[in-house]
Amino acid sequence: MPQVEPLPVTGAWMPGDPVGHRQFFTIPPERPMALDGGGKLRGVTLAYETWGALNADRSNAILVCHAWTGDAHAEGPQVDGQQTLGWWNGVIGPGCAIDTDRYFVVCSNVLGGCQGSTGPASPHPDDGRPYGSRFPVLTIRDMVRAQARLADHLGVESWASVIGGSMGGMQALEWAVTFPDRVRSLVPIATCAYATAQQIAWGAIGRRAIKLDPKWRGGDYYDAAPGDGPAEGLSVARMVAQVTFRSDNVFTEKFGRELAVGDPHPEAGFDLWQRFEVERYLDYHGDQLAKRFDTNSYIVIGKAMDLHDVGRNRNGFASAMSRIKVPTLSMGIWSDILYPSYQQREIREILVSQGTPCEYVEIDSPHGHDAFLLSKDQVSAALAPFLDKVEKG
Amino acid sequence: MPQVEPLPVTGAWMPGDPVGHRQFFTIPPERPMALDGGGKLRGVTLAYETWGALNADRSNAILVCHAWTGDAHAEGPQVDGQQTLGWWNGVIGPGCAIDTDRYFVVCSNVLGGCQGSTGPASPHPDDGRPYGSRFPVLTIRDMVRAQARLADHLGVESWASVIGGSMGGMQALEWAVTFPDRVRSLVPIATCAYATAQQIAWGAIGRRAIKLDPKWRGGDYYDAAPGDGPAEGLSVARMVAQVTFRSDNVFTEKFGRELAVGDPHPEAGFDLWQRFEVERYLDYHGDQLAKRFDTNSYIVIGKAMDLHDVGRNRNGFASAMSRIKVPTLSMGIWSDILYPSYQQREIREILVSQGTPCEYVEIDSPHGHDAFLLSKDQVSAALAPFLDKVEKG
Repeated sequence: MPQVEPLPVTGAWMPGDPVGHRQFFTIPPERPMALDGGGKLRGVTLAYETWGALNADRSNAILVCHAWTGDAHAEGPQVDGQQTLGWWNGVIGPGCAIDTDRYFVVCSNVLGGCQGSTGPASPHPDDGRPYGSRFPVLTIRDMVRAQARLADHLGVESWASVIGGSMGGMQALEWAVTFPDRVRSLVPIATCAYATAQQIAWGAIGRRAIKLDPKWRGGDYYDAAPGDGPAEGLSVARMVAQVTFRSDNVFTEKFGRELAVGDPHPEAGFDLWQRFEVERYLDYHGDQLAKRFDTNSYIVIGKAMDLHDVGRNRNGFASAMSRIKVPTLSMGIWSDILYPSYQQREIREILVSQGTPCEYVEIDSPHGHDAFLLSKDQVSAALAPFLDKVEKG
Repeated sequence: MPQVEPLPVTGAWMPGDPVGHRQFFTIPPERPMALDGGGKLRGVTLAYETWGALNADRSNAILVCHAWTGDAHAEGPQVDGQQTLGWWNGVIGPGCAIDTDRYFVVCSNVLGGCQGSTGPASPHPDDGRPYGSRFPVLTIRDMVRAQARLADHLGVESWASVIGGSMGGMQALEWAVTFPDRVRSLVPIATCAYATAQQIAWGAIGRRAIKLDPKWRGGDYYDAAPGDGPAEGLSVARMVAQVTFRSDNVFTEKFGRELAVGDPHPEAGFDLWQRFEVERYLDYHGDQLAKRFDTNSYIVIGKAMDLHDVGRNRNGFASAMSRIKVPTLSMGIWSDILYPSYQQREIREILVSQGTPCEYVEIDSPHGHDAFLLSKDQVSAALAPFLDKVEKG
């Protein structure tokens, strides 16, 4: 199995990233991946983590899919060069809803990512230099097809369940539609079957902000000196996303109209760049992301979400969804302004109308879209009985 | 009365702008305006338009206040160098809800603006060069205090009503709180008594996008060659605002997932910069704004909205609102995601709890925040009987 050299944690983002507990799988270069948008990628590597053990009849595998800036580290501590805590700690683990004593759990960094999988910062096989602007546009289907190669490699013929929130939910849906025989149950959370105009609009604004940053250099910034990359553009893009990930009421509760803690307070805010506390919070999240995430990956993955439409080239939404025949748990969040809960109810409605068993559970949280990461108790409370029921057939 | 030389309409924004039917009032330089944030502005000019005639006892004057990128041209055609149609055509006019056969109607471009009033593009009295980065931070109260000087000049001791949507509503509220004796009724629409953290967040993102544009040059770009100004940054800032001005459902209905009309369609959208129709729409609105609006004015006015808080230095919201004793019509829009209708209901609730007559009317429109400009029939239907009732006492 190919190894990636661990890189030092510098605080600034670097191509590739520390290894942690990740493993790596590379699709043999002689079997290039054909992409949805045309063209091919050779020698694609996926970084992934696993928890638990595959049973003898290989029937207990669950695929967990991450969101935009997530990675394979769905469970585990912030150690061994891993810069973040497992994003679903408490949902995955021994005795948890996704019980690693019972299941073999897999999470892989998506194609196009920057946490060990092939993405724009990876070396182009032709010249060993980063792809940069040469990296192709991807779709969620491309990500899923790469994961299918990983499943082959792991000996997983079909998943007991494919589970994910936000972009992870898009992958879950695409798994079930693209490979109906390889998915035995499905849990899309706070996601959609196709990106709406408003979702595309938010994504487009982020792209435009990055393009506006002269340090983005059209995508070819990997030779830039440390600190001279497109961190500002990425940060502004992230600010847009961050507001859509949360909610008005929680922002009011957390920040109100307070001025930024620790900032100088000239004349109680009467300075153009004197920040309110909410601005400091957004700046902080933008800066944090710029330290750990590649700007081109952010763009490529964001565009894949805009292109997400299960019905494309499949005679539309209803026809595509009719391929799903397995028990499905669709989860929404009432306070989600990015993927409003009508989109998850629509998934339930179309499946039920087509005779597929689907339940809908709404997470009762004021936290907005991110509640799938924050209100883990509620996610677990719905997941555990669903997986039990599916297992018992 | 001072006159401003008409400038040619070039399509690109220029300091100052064509005169149209505007009139101009300049506060004598020997009476500089003291600002909320400290400092003073000398020789402030306000551009304004009027409709109808002031009656003998000067009791029939109505002040209409415009929103962020609006101007004094609330009513009238797109002629005489005036680049836009009256933004409340049909609401103001003979026989309309704001009946110019009965009322003397005034609308003035706000302080800090770029449609004839003193703003960052205006000449600094010290050296005649544009203020640029030297222009001070303003508040809604500063705008209103400048308007009060205009009212003095026009001989209007008190307004029969002060009416406005969005930032115009902020001005209406500040008028009633700052000058309780000069306002006899009040109509704040799709607005708030104080900007929330989420509203500040949207504003901050726009500022950051403009700052990211190297052509903004820290605010001192007025010497730039034509086409070399911060149009891109302003355009991205406007895109953010434009999404918050509209709604998910109307975006879905208007644009769905269509690719941009007139763009090349390589591989059905599989190009990073291939636009969806919603992106073309946002680009168009961004570009249009950049042609008619000064970027620094956009920033200064946006910051004023973030600073908006009727309770500041007045012992808070309830205490400030207790100064309002006049009949008030608070209007909201159920689909408004920027100024959600709970904010306009809160205005009603506090006033009623304090014994001030206030009704609340909700505009039933899916168009989001901009419904106060789009659903003019509903605005008129609520305004007309309210003004009638107020007039009859």
